[in-house]
Order: sequence, then C-alpha cells, then structure tokens
Amino acid sequence: MHINELPTPTLWADVDALEFNIAEMARRLPGKRLRPHVKAHKTTELAKLQRDAGHLGFTCATPKELVGLAEAGLGEDLLLANETVDENRLRAMANSDARVTVAVDSIATIDAAARSGISECVIDVRVGFRCGCEVEEAGALAEHASKSNISVRGVMGYEGHAMGVVDVNDRRNLVEAAMLRLLEAHEIVGGDLITGGGTGTHAINTWVNEIQAGSYVLMDTAYTEQQDQPFKQGLFLQSTVVSVAPNFVVCDAGLKSQGMDHGNPTWHEGEVLFCSDEHTNLVPTSSLKVGDRVSLVPAHIDPTMAKHQVLHLVRGNEVIDAWKIDLRHW
Amino acid sequence: MHINELPTPTLWADVDALEFNIAEMARRLPGKRLRPHVKAHKTTELAKLQRDAGHLGFTCATPKELVGLAEAGLGEDLLLANETVDENRLRAMANSDARVTVAVDSIATIDAAARSGISECVIDVRVGFRCGCEVEEAGALAEHASKSNISVRGVMGYEGHAMGVVDVNDRRNLVEAAMLRLLEAHEIVGGDLITGGGTGTHAINTWVNEIQAGSYVLMDTAYTEQQDQPFKQGLFLQSTVVSVAPNFVVCDAGLKSQGMDHGNPTWHEGEVLFCSDEHTNLVPTSSLKVGDRVSLVPAHIDPTMAKHQVLHLVRGNEVIDAWKIDLRHW
Repeated sequence: MHINELPTPTLWADVDALEFNIAEMARRLPGKRLRPHVKAHKTTELAKLQRDAGHLGFTCATPKELVGLAEAGLGEDLLLANETVDENRLRAMANSDARVTVAVDSIATIDAAARSGISECVIDVRVGFRCGCEVEEAGALAEHASKSNISVRGVMGYEGHAMGVVDVNDRRNLVEAAMLRLLEAHEIVGGDLITGGGTGTHAINTWVNEIQAGSYVLMDTAYTEQQDQPFKQGLFLQSTVVSVAPNFVVCDAGLKSQGMDHGNPTWHEGEVLFCSDEHTNLVPTSSLKVGDRVSLVPAHIDPTMAKHQVLHLVRGNEVIDAWKIDLRHW
Repeated sequence: MHINELPTPTLWADVDALEFNIAEMARRLPGKRLRPHVKAHKTTELAKLQRDAGHLGFTCATPKELVGLAEAGLGEDLLLANETVDENRLRAMANSDARVTVAVDSIATIDAAARSGISECVIDVRVGFRCGCEVEEAGALAEHASKSNISVRGVMGYEGHAMGVVDVNDRRNLVEAAMLRLLEAHEIVGGDLITGGGTGTHAINTWVNEIQAGSYVLMDTAYTEQQDQPFKQGLFLQSTVVSVAPNFVVCDAGLKSQGMDHGNPTWHEGEVLFCSDEHTNLVPTSSLKVGDRVSLVPAHIDPTMAKHQVLHLVRGNEVIDAWKIDLRHW
C-alpha cells in the first residue's frame, strides 16, 4: 500500500531511520549498557527489534507495559522505573513469567511491593525533580527492603531536568551533579545496578552502568536540536489537507492526534500556525490542494504514540507493516 | 466501590454536576436549539443522556463518532461538522441507519461526498480561522452540491476564535462579526439550518438557530473563568501520590493522561508545579502521604477524554457506573 492510501490522521515510522537508530545505539551502548525504555514507543514489536539488537533488559513506566513485555516473551529482566502502591498491578507483575525489579523510594512503596510478592528492587534516588528518596534515606530503605525479603539490585536516578538541555556542556554539568548524588547513594546501598539516563544524556552520562533511553528509536524534535545526537527523525504524523484558505491550509491532524506539551509539531514544507482539536493550520511553501498529504513531525513522541492504536512501517513510500501500539493505557 | 479504590490515573465524572449541566443547558437551549457536540466527550452513554434531555440531533467531528452514534440508535439527525475526502469513511456514514449531513467547503469535499452516497450537506463558511469557504464562494458551492444530488440544508460557521475569550463583551463582538458573515452566506444559500457556536458562546450567539456545544457537560477550566457560564466542573482526573519530597509530592497522573494544550491542570488542594510523562508534581496545602488520592481538574476535556478508555460515574464518593469512552480514535 502507498503511504498516501492510509486513512488519516495516522502515525508512521521511517523504517530506515528506525533501523539506523537501533543499530547506532547498540553500537554506542551494546547489550546491557542499554536498558531500552518502552514508555516512549509502547510497542512490543519495536521492543523485539531492540532485543534483537542485543538489549535483553527493558525499562517500563507502567505495570501494563511490563506485563505486556512479559507476555510477549521479553521478560528476561524488566525494570519498573516508577513507583506504585497499586497491589493488584504489583501482583500482576509478580505473577508474570518475567524477572521483575521495581523502583522504590519509601517505606510505603517497599511494603506494597513486599505484600504483592515482588522480590527485587532498586532504590530510586531523587537526583532531579521527580520521584526518589533523599541520598540520606537510601541506606535505611535498602535495609527495610532486605528485611522485607526484597533483594536490592542497586540504585536508580533519573536526571530528567538535564534531558532536553540543548548545550552539551550545560547538560553535562547537570548530569554530573545529579550522578554524583546517585553514586553517593550507591556507596551506601551497593548492588550491581546503577541505572538512569535517557536519550538526551546517553552519550555523556558515564556514571551509570546502564542507560534507560527510549526516544532514540523514533526521536523527538527537542532532541534533534542537540548537536551530539546521531539519531534520525523516525516518527511522522500523516494527515490530509481538508480545507484551503487564501493564506493557509487546514490538515486533519489536530492536537488529539499528537502530544502538545513540547509545543507545535514541525513541518518540512512550510510553517505550522497552530493546532486545534481536530486540525492543524499550515502555511505551505508551495501550493497545496484539498486531498494532498502532509507529514508533520510531532514535538514529543511519548504522548503522541500513546494516542494512537497503530504504527505503520514505511520504507520509501510503501507501507510494509502495521504494528499495534499495544502497551498503552494503564 | 469507593472512588479511592479505582486504579489510577483514571477519569471520573461528578454525576450531580453532569446532570445539572445537562438540565441547565436543556432549559437554556431546549430541543433543536442545541445540537450537542460529541467530540468533547466521545461517549455514547453520555450522548444518550443528552438525547433524553430532548436533543435529538448531534454534532460530530469524526466519521467514527457519527457511525458510533448511528449504531447506538442515536441517528435521527447527525451532522459531521468537519470536512473529509476519505471516501471509505464517507461511505460508512452514508451506509449507516442515520440521517447524515456533512459540512462541505470546496468542490473536492462535495465531490467526495457525492461519490460516497451522502445526500445532505451544510455549506461551511469560514467565520474564524479553521475550515470553511469564503462567503463569496458559498452560493456556487451550494449550486454544485445541488447539481451533485446533495441537498443543502443551510450553513455552518464555527467562531472558534471567540470561544475562550473571558470578557463577555469582547466575546460578543467577535461572535457578532463572525455571525454576520455567516448570515450573509445564508442569504445566498438558504436552508433551515444556521448552525455554529459552542459552550463559550452558547448564551450570546443569537444569530444561529442551533448551537453545537459539547464541553458544557463536563466543563473546561478555561470556561470556568467566563462569568456568564452557569455550568459546574464535572470531570476530574483521579491520581495517587506515589512519592513525597520535602517540598512537593508526586502523583501518578502525568501528561499522558490529560490534554496539555490549555496548560497544566488545576488542583483545589494546592499548587500544580509541572507535569511530566507519567507524573504531576504538586505542592499541597496540607500534608499528604504515599497512597493518598488527589483529584486534578484537567485544563481541556476534549483531548483528555480522548486519552482514556473509561469514564467512571461518581456520586458523593461512590462509583455508581463506568462508561466506555467508545467514540475515540479515527
């Protein structure tokens, strides 16, 4: 099927870019040096390509992602890099076939995990502005976990505040300050895992021993401003021009079809004016008519993927496959 | 079930508010004066309450919404208030049991509708910054539709640029200017329908003969700033505190669980700092611990509803029902 036959709005991935990105990251961070984060793409079939590239462990943001990977046979070493006290969901993870490790940062999260049959954890240390315990609490939490029959595999710290910083030196300074705190906690807690990082810091975070990158496969426009990113834009939002005004055209990919938290999408063939619920208004550099196709680049892939049921795989102009975005919702 | 037993993040509607809003709007715009827009809630069960309140016609933004309403027996008079040239979807609408009217604003959209067996349309006139033809084109398009065996029921114009304006006089001036253009087109085109408007302009748009409001049922924080809105906040995003820091708490309702195009959610019990993919950081006015529940008010209901599978119905603290948000996707 030609890409222009797809009903719109719909997502498509450039297979060449996707394969390049996976291979390039596997070259930079082979095997266990990368624990791919599936929250960015929420697609089991894509995780399989990452597994085939040599990464056997995965990072998840939700129990649903983790259980989904386990059911797909990708459960060799799954980390829920997030806190939960939902015991039904913790039990579902514990009862899966996977090796399951959860992030904990409080007595409450450890107790919920213990009651649900979870047997391994990492101590999540706050090195930025999200979850995590203070460095000073890490030792006592590790002790509480051990007493609760949960093995402590190490520490985790996510430097989310550094991830999108464009200047590489500024970014490195933020990462270093964050990671020194993480290593301080690791000195107390011990364990094999020092886990953190993401696409934005994958090349400069040399303090952790595994990187939790996910966006690199499909890429965000935010990251493409970073000079040290080798990855190619892989995700596009296909739309159809449905209305033509004297000064702009309107396509059928609005804000319900893409994440808006990083702002408007970009477009290679003109200017993006604004998005409304069902539409995006564009000023094309060359004349467009009703029915013409327009591919936008969503500003943030994670929430964009989470809005769609299907990711189409495109090589050239040919749709060669369609993958279910099967790890969505909660 | 108590509301605090719901797995999070999840949406819930305050049934008292929802019933009040539906009744109040039916009092203000009874029967055919309102053609409820389902794009805001995408929920057939909710549309049935609107039907029970006396509104037999509905407005849709997508063919999927329209076909879904038709299948649910709500097809007495359905308007696709949007342009499409997707002939498969147009045919699916034409083949439904519903009375189907589509918006057209170009020769291409009329021809696609004609080829697909659509038999009624409204001429969509650009009175704002989205779809619609120029006033001067309306007559020729109506003629082309008639020649293509599509009856022209009248005109449509959506004054989206006025919808969120807080000051009622500013808003009225914008609506008046837009609607005078619409009436100019109606003088040429004729027909029974002069359709447009929304929740933000429902009380001041006296030029149309039916209002396409949808948000009033669940309400947006944007509209609650408008002094002339009688409607109550009906939609909430239930979340769980998963991490507690010295200066803030982190709950599990992030930007994947709510529309971000109108900005951060609001919260009645403290300050919202920021949203990340899976989390929202909050500064509570009184101390919160891990496991406590927090209900946020999403800034924009339309894209928020589109992200969830289920809407829980809550009276007091009791979950009395769960409705599938069944008109999502495309």
